[in-house]
Amino acid sequence: MEKKEISKSVLKRLPGYLAYLKSLPPDASPYISATALASALGMGEVQVRKDLAMVSDGGRPKIGYLRQGLADDIEQFLGYDNTTDAVLIGAGKLGQALMGYGGFDAYGLNILAGFDAAPTTDATEEGKPIYPMSQLPAFCKSNKVLMGIVTVPAKYAQEVCNQLIACGIKAIWTFASAHIDVPDGILVQYENMATSLAVLSMHLKAQIKEKK
Amino acid sequence: MEKKEISKSVLKRLPGYLAYLKSLPPDASPYISATALASALGMGEVQVRKDLAMVSDGGRPKIGYLRQGLADDIEQFLGYDNTTDAVLIGAGKLGQALMGYGGFDAYGLNILAGFDAAPTTDATEEGKPIYPMSQLPAFCKSNKVLMGIVTVPAKYAQEVCNQLIACGIKAIWTFASAHIDVPDGILVQYENMATSLAVLSMHLKAQIKEKK
Repeated sequence: MEKKEISKSVLKRLPGYLAYLKSLPPDASPYISATALASALGMGEVQVRKDLAMVSDGGRPKIGYLRQGLADDIEQFLGYDNTTDAVLIGAGKLGQALMGYGGFDAYGLNILAGFDAAPTTDATEEGKPIYPMSQLPAFCKSNKVLMGIVTVPAKYAQEVCNQLIACGIKAIWTFASAHIDVPDGILVQYENMATSLAVLSMHLKAQIKEKK
Repeated sequence: MEKKEISKSVLKRLPGYLAYLKSLPPDASPYISATALASALGMGEVQVRKDLAMVSDGGRPKIGYLRQGLADDIEQFLGYDNTTDAVLIGAGKLGQALMGYGGFDAYGLNILAGFDAAPTTDATEEGKPIYPMSQLPAFCKSNKVLMGIVTVPAKYAQEVCNQLIACGIKAIWTFASAHIDVPDGILVQYENMATSLAVLSMHLKAQIKEKK
């Protein structure tokens, strides 16, 4: 189907629908309605209905969507059927874990190589190469890489992002808890674990206070 | 200072301020104003001013905050000075990386042990223990653990969360891309990498389309 303009908030909800569809047992009904999906995910029915209509025209009145067809449409929409190549900067513990994490394949992410200011090894356990930073520009150019993953300590994050942008990177996924300044046209997506921990800690504090 | 009721959105911004304050070089001015902080982070001045006033009463007109004092106030507010003990379920690659990740200490998170349905080792490289799932209830009880980190595949996430809740866990940090149903009083914080990847991929698609 013709793809419509889609907002970031819709985009952020799509992987949730997909994960739910994929989590259903094979012997579940081959059809699923927006109502059933909304109820299973604790979301508003109108919102789910609108979201699904943005990415799939397979919905039929009173029947719903063919489950597999809907999952395929969402995957195609999210580009999971096209692989995105990425480089990772900061091949420490977290970086190497992400490089070796098999789960990203399902989302079309392929981390080609890791780079580090001072590599402690030349490959991950799984055999993905780790190079010194000096090789980053040539590697990005010859592999036409557009995505960079940043797992360096916060204080190096801006400098590393500047280097990535100079290498032609257009999208940055950062795990460092530091704000990054970037020019127009570059997207930074923060995986801010510190933020998550803050929210969790406050909840626990409130729980403990209530008990007292 | 007396702590005020604080919204989740304020809470989510605090780690960003803290990271910026900590990223400043030691020879920078000992004072920082809300205006300077807002400008550095590309945020609204009024919002930053209000946020800071929620957690610190150290701001002085025309001078701003003592940088170290403000950082201390935010840390104390976020509870980073109190350590939170956690268990981690799913001691695969990602799980073991999180267990060994030194960066969480700074946020007051201490992962005591990992648990796995089928452990492949009895400890991480750093010596943190990994136990079979059968030992989870006793461990949580004797260590009074309130936080659980979930790094199992999406299809096991709900089951594992049910087990954690039965063990007295009140806050769950999940890396599995699956929606989790929980009773009132339990907080689930999603670290949804699939969502991040979707946002990044769409940006790259739009960039490539523009070029054509």
